[in-house]
Amino acid sequence: MEEKQVSKATMQRLPLYLTYLRTAPFRENISSAMIANELGLGEIQVRKDLASVSGAGRPKTGYRTGTLIADLEDFLGYHNIDNAVVVGCGRLGMAILDYNGFSEYGMNIEAGFDTDCSKTGVSQTEKEILPLDRLEEYCAEHDIRIAILCVPPDNAQEACCAMSRAGIKAVLNFAPICPSAPEGMTVRNVNIAAQLAQLANSMSKRGSSINV
Amino acid sequence: MEEKQVSKATMQRLPLYLTYLRTAPFRENISSAMIANELGLGEIQVRKDLASVSGAGRPKTGYRTGTLIADLEDFLGYHNIDNAVVVGCGRLGMAILDYNGFSEYGMNIEAGFDTDCSKTGVSQTEKEILPLDRLEEYCAEHDIRIAILCVPPDNAQEACCAMSRAGIKAVLNFAPICPSAPEGMTVRNVNIAAQLAQLANSMSKRGSSINV
Repeated sequence: MEEKQVSKATMQRLPLYLTYLRTAPFRENISSAMIANELGLGEIQVRKDLASVSGAGRPKTGYRTGTLIADLEDFLGYHNIDNAVVVGCGRLGMAILDYNGFSEYGMNIEAGFDTDCSKTGVSQTEKEILPLDRLEEYCAEHDIRIAILCVPPDNAQEACCAMSRAGIKAVLNFAPICPSAPEGMTVRNVNIAAQLAQLANSMSKRGSSINV
Repeated sequence: MEEKQVSKATMQRLPLYLTYLRTAPFRENISSAMIANELGLGEIQVRKDLASVSGAGRPKTGYRTGTLIADLEDFLGYHNIDNAVVVGCGRLGMAILDYNGFSEYGMNIEAGFDTDCSKTGVSQTEKEILPLDRLEEYCAEHDIRIAILCVPPDNAQEACCAMSRAGIKAVLNFAPICPSAPEGMTVRNVNIAAQLAQLANSMSKRGSSINV
């Protein structure tokens, strides 16, 4: 089917549908009502989201689960592997470097980088950890344009500049700071503490629901 | 100022403004144009978001930075400390348990829990790690209703049920699965691999920007 333009909100929900479909007990067909119910979303929204990526839905029988999973994977680009590196090999960076769940999402973490030479060597899963000043050379050699930033807040801006020089175009940033993105670089901030606080605040305001 | 209802999208951007204001070089006044520019957002959106939580904005001079920070902290509830626990003390769980940046967001991580008795004891920062079967008793004693879930995907549903029995009402879930939320529990899913894949896909579609 021809690929359609989808909204940013839909783009954020698509991986959730895929994760649900992959991990729920397998059934040959699944309805948008069931997906909506399990994920705490509206049925019309689910149907609209899925219609934009898959033609596998049929009235009454619903979606063929296998086809829907393949369509979502295809649309989300999970069939093409993208390589990425971790910059900042503290405890969070090391946990991410060795996490084995990236391949299901079409991602491969190649190596880690740190300014602290005592951290260089290999990780528990035998991934290389290199000095940060080798980032540029490494990214050029391995054609890497995506990084996960896990440095302390005071080092985040400098690390962004180093990544920019190394040709990194997209950064998932776990440092609790909003660095200025150098020209041509996209930074997505993931602030775990802020997300937890937001959840705590929402508790009194909402009932049971799952949100993306 | 009277507290207004704000949209979910605004609620997600507010912590970003606060993080930016706290970490950018301090200036007495700051304009919505500058905040918008630094964060890659639209100026009208920033002005509208901030107007819903603070009366500190003035034409021409902009916002008084100190007042705006205090208003944001107040609105986001960061002046009241909420306690939380970590369930699942693998490498990610342990990194979160010992992370020292939660207090700035009004959160305190009290203790960790795991089914694996070899992990119980204390963490690097001397936080207690207890067997999961003590969760109910501990949460009742310490009045805890918030948890961070860092277990492997196969254990996530069972852990949700144990947390529900322990009176947990809100869960920040890092397991790459969408567990069914027991009645009365809010689960927010944070799938790091899916976020990275989404960023990788967006690279070819967008230029430089920072998104929340």
